[in-house]
Amino acid sequence: MGRQVSSIKETLSTIIFGTDTPAGKLFDMVLIYSILISVATVVLDSVAGLHANYGRWFFYLEWFFTLLFTIEYFLRIYISERPLKYIFSFFGLIDLISIIPSYLALVIVGANYLLIIRMLRVLRVFRILKLVRYMSEANLLMRSLYMGRRKIFIFFFTVIILSFIFGSLMFVIEGPKHGFTSIPKSIYWTIVTITTVGYGDITPQTIAGQFISILAMLTGYSIIAIPTGIVTAEMASELGRVRSKKLCSQCGRAGHETDAEFCKYCGAGDLPQVE
Amino acid sequence: MGRQVSSIKETLSTIIFGTDTPAGKLFDMVLIYSILISVATVVLDSVAGLHANYGRWFFYLEWFFTLLFTIEYFLRIYISERPLKYIFSFFGLIDLISIIPSYLALVIVGANYLLIIRMLRVLRVFRILKLVRYMSEANLLMRSLYMGRRKIFIFFFTVIILSFIFGSLMFVIEGPKHGFTSIPKSIYWTIVTITTVGYGDITPQTIAGQFISILAMLTGYSIIAIPTGIVTAEMASELGRVRSKKLCSQCGRAGHETDAEFCKYCGAGDLPQVE
Amino acid sequence: MGRQVSSIKETLSTIIFGTDTPAGKLFDMVLIYSILISVATVVLDSVAGLHANYGRWFFYLEWFFTLLFTIEYFLRIYISERPLKYIFSFFGLIDLISIIPSYLALVIVGANYLLIIRMLRVLRVFRILKLVRYMSEANLLMRSLYMGRRKIFIFFFTVIILSFIFGSLMFVIEGPKHGFTSIPKSIYWTIVTITTVGYGDITPQTIAGQFISILAMLTGYSIIAIPTGIVTAEMASELGRVRSKKLCSQCGRAGHETDAEFCKYCGAGDLPQVE
Amino acid sequence: MGRQVSSIKETLSTIIFGTDTPAGKLFDMVLIYSILISVATVVLDSVAGLHANYGRWFFYLEWFFTLLFTIEYFLRIYISERPLKYIFSFFGLIDLISIIPSYLALVIVGANYLLIIRMLRVLRVFRILKLVRYMSEANLLMRSLYMGRRKIFIFFFTVIILSFIFGSLMFVIEGPKHGFTSIPKSIYWTIVTITTVGYGDITPQTIAGQFISILAMLTGYSIIAIPTGIVTAEMASELGRVRSKKLCSQCGRAGHETDAEFCKYCGAGDLPQVE
Repeated sequence: MGRQVSSIKETLSTIIFGTDTPAGKLFDMVLIYSILISVATVVLDSVAGLHANYGRWFFYLEWFFTLLFTIEYFLRIYISERPLKYIFSFFGLIDLISIIPSYLALVIVGANYLLIIRMLRVLRVFRILKLVRYMSEANLLMRSLYMGRRKIFIFFFTVIILSFIFGSLMFVIEGPKHGFTSIPKSIYWTIVTITTVGYGDITPQTIAGQFISILAMLTGYSIIAIPTGIVTAEMASELGRVRSKKLCSQCGRAGHETDAEFCKYCGAGDLPQVE
Repeated sequence: MGRQVSSIKETLSTIIFGTDTPAGKLFDMVLIYSILISVATVVLDSVAGLHANYGRWFFYLEWFFTLLFTIEYFLRIYISERPLKYIFSFFGLIDLISIIPSYLALVIVGANYLLIIRMLRVLRVFRILKLVRYMSEANLLMRSLYMGRRKIFIFFFTVIILSFIFGSLMFVIEGPKHGFTSIPKSIYWTIVTITTVGYGDITPQTIAGQFISILAMLTGYSIIAIPTGIVTAEMASELGRVRSKKLCSQCGRAGHETDAEFCKYCGAGDLPQVE
Repeated sequence: MGRQVSSIKETLSTIIFGTDTPAGKLFDMVLIYSILISVATVVLDSVAGLHANYGRWFFYLEWFFTLLFTIEYFLRIYISERPLKYIFSFFGLIDLISIIPSYLALVIVGANYLLIIRMLRVLRVFRILKLVRYMSEANLLMRSLYMGRRKIFIFFFTVIILSFIFGSLMFVIEGPKHGFTSIPKSIYWTIVTITTVGYGDITPQTIAGQFISILAMLTGYSIIAIPTGIVTAEMASELGRVRSKKLCSQCGRAGHETDAEFCKYCGAGDLPQVE
Repeated sequence: MGRQVSSIKETLSTIIFGTDTPAGKLFDMVLIYSILISVATVVLDSVAGLHANYGRWFFYLEWFFTLLFTIEYFLRIYISERPLKYIFSFFGLIDLISIIPSYLALVIVGANYLLIIRMLRVLRVFRILKLVRYMSEANLLMRSLYMGRRKIFIFFFTVIILSFIFGSLMFVIEGPKHGFTSIPKSIYWTIVTITTVGYGDITPQTIAGQFISILAMLTGYSIIAIPTGIVTAEMASELGRVRSKKLCSQCGRAGHETDAEFCKYCGAGDLPQVE
């Protein structure tokens, strides 16, 4: 009996967690399409015209997928050998977050909470993050970012300090009557300027303000080089490592290009072929 | 007779497909200028003032070039040794697409279809893509993009997920009364923000919305580094291969790294030292 | 007596300048939080609504921190073995600048000076720059920028010349009636355009103006590559040096390139092979 | 007599073209400041308020510098051993262009030509380009751009084709009533979008238009990576060449870092010290 159960568990585990068997592949495909349709439902429901005509169907579809993903979530827990590890894993948490909002919308009743409920519903969009699970090519990018994480932190830190300084200066120079109503708003303007987004909802009107703006823009234009430099340098380094998995069997040296056939250091002719 | 025909075919083939003979070069020059004038006709015809005065002449010019390019298209098919290969090649399809719109505008009559007809006419602009054919220097760029294609896909995927999440959040926080009328429109806003375009047609009005905007901008500002990093790293790698002018004296092949001592293709041990 | 004083001085020095003892760590943490709260006070006080309700408390808080930082400043001078060196050091000056504004606001009375006083108060934000002191990871970034300082200067010089030329052209072409009221304002517009900020407060209205704008945008889009290239190339070079973990077994020095076989410092021939 | 003249010529040549003697240095400094003041005059004269009050003085100053630079220009021709070479050199032409506008404003009289005269006057700003002459550090940047010139041409070519295609599509989709009054104007919009400037003077209003906009933005965001990649890769390559001027006297190999003392290939201990 227990053996039969464990056999079912094993089969389900192969289907749900595995990606090698035909059944496992089919399950993954169905899951991805369900996620995409579910997200599309939320997005389309937000369009006033569509909500008026098809709101009822969007509601049914949303609940259909919520129940489906709920069953899937508990199946995953049931199947896991170490359920707690799954529950507190990155995707375990995302799986949970992507079904909670629909249920919360039921429990919490009250017109004034409506806004919050809608916000929670929107979180179902996170479910699409599941898709990332199926991509392993993202590793190189991730590793590049990870290697440069401290430099990226310092970069953001610098941007934040600069935005405080420029924001305060602009608040004093331009003042509330030109749209710079407070330092937080001026900081918002500075970020809009430094990142070169430039909405134009708030713009400097005075000569002094425009001069400070020029400094902020040139600063932004320059420091845009820094994250690029960090990521590029790290990525080039990672790329070099990935590309040079080839080792010469004679002198044992690495660093060969992917199309090399002979060792460039000792001339040995048996370099392995890499993808 | 058949011999004469094949001789004409050969001559035409040299002129039309070849670029080495004076006649071939002349043909290519005439073709490029025809394409440029043809595109200019479409562009100028779109200016209301010019259309009112010279619309008739633009119409004649357009048909002149359409007929010219139609003859050229069928000549290319007739000359080709394997016509189907040409027809379904990249440039064969572009050649076809760039003559179809004018004919379609004849067949489909009806005021309400006018808009679509205009759109098809605009596609004649694609004819200019022919120009790319004459450039072989683009290969390095193409190869760099090709090598990084999977990383670029992941990058776009990340941008799309982020735009859905930020878009939904902004729709809930700002809502229709601040211009965020639906999630699709909020996604449009997010792309405008993340790519640092920042039209300013929709801007956050609430403190919370401005805070989320700041996050979106900083995210965009940071991930701009990723495609740059990908392309740069790939291009540096490609460039290094191209730049190295070392030639193996035995097999005559280039593409060796500057610090290589042995030919990586044939193992010959006398690669010259390059500055 | 003198011994006792010098002993107190030493203890204080360990706490204030040191970061290794528990007391030193605690002091640093308290200082950082004081700075953050003090900055938050200035920022929140600038919001009209909050100033109306809590302005009094913000005023007390501001003076509390001003006095605290004043005491800290004089303690640092008292403790230092070479006080003048501290006073004229980068952080000595920032420490001073971040307490002066509050006192200046007392001395200078007069309604028309109010604006300036506010500006000086805002300078207290500089105090946050102290935080940078605790980061040593910033060195790599700094060195990359330092190595490329001359190239960066030339880059900025080019941007300024371009902005003068484009600005003057646009002033003549568009003129005051389209918002280009003077060459300085046109230069402001050019910087907004070249840096791809694009507020949209001033936009070209004539065909000629839009054509010049296109040139300015494409110029900006292209030269954005230059600072990035500078920083990236320098950073990759710095990174390569840092990353290489090879240690010479004879002189123990690191910083060797991955393909090095002999120590570049002492010439020892047994550098280990690194993956 | 002839000997005396040639002696004067030689002395003047040392002062005007040379930069090594004290007199030559002084001349260069005076020239730079004259250029800066002259440019400032033109810029300030364009401000309506200043022109009303000080227009007379700006006029005198402008003519003072025009005469000064005219004398300088003819002196340069007189001194040159091969005057024609100077006249048709890059700086010879700039020297001429920077004095012509003032004289042209005298000859051409007529109210309706006034606008053109103003434009010619603005060209005096070009005189500032002389400053570049004093910088030799710009060479590395120039060479990087020169090495990548063909790739940069292909890049611009791609941007122009894309702007034609996107521009035409948007003209058809959005049409004149949403601000896309002609294909040239739509191309202007596309460049504004692709370069991520985003003024917001013309924005898509329809769903289809916003979708095409998103494609244009993502395209722009991606291809911004290409010029950066080109310049960075070229610059890294140039930097590498500049940094490794060191050659091992024993094995003759290059590629040593600036701080290397021993050859990393053969261990020889006499690497030259480079700045």
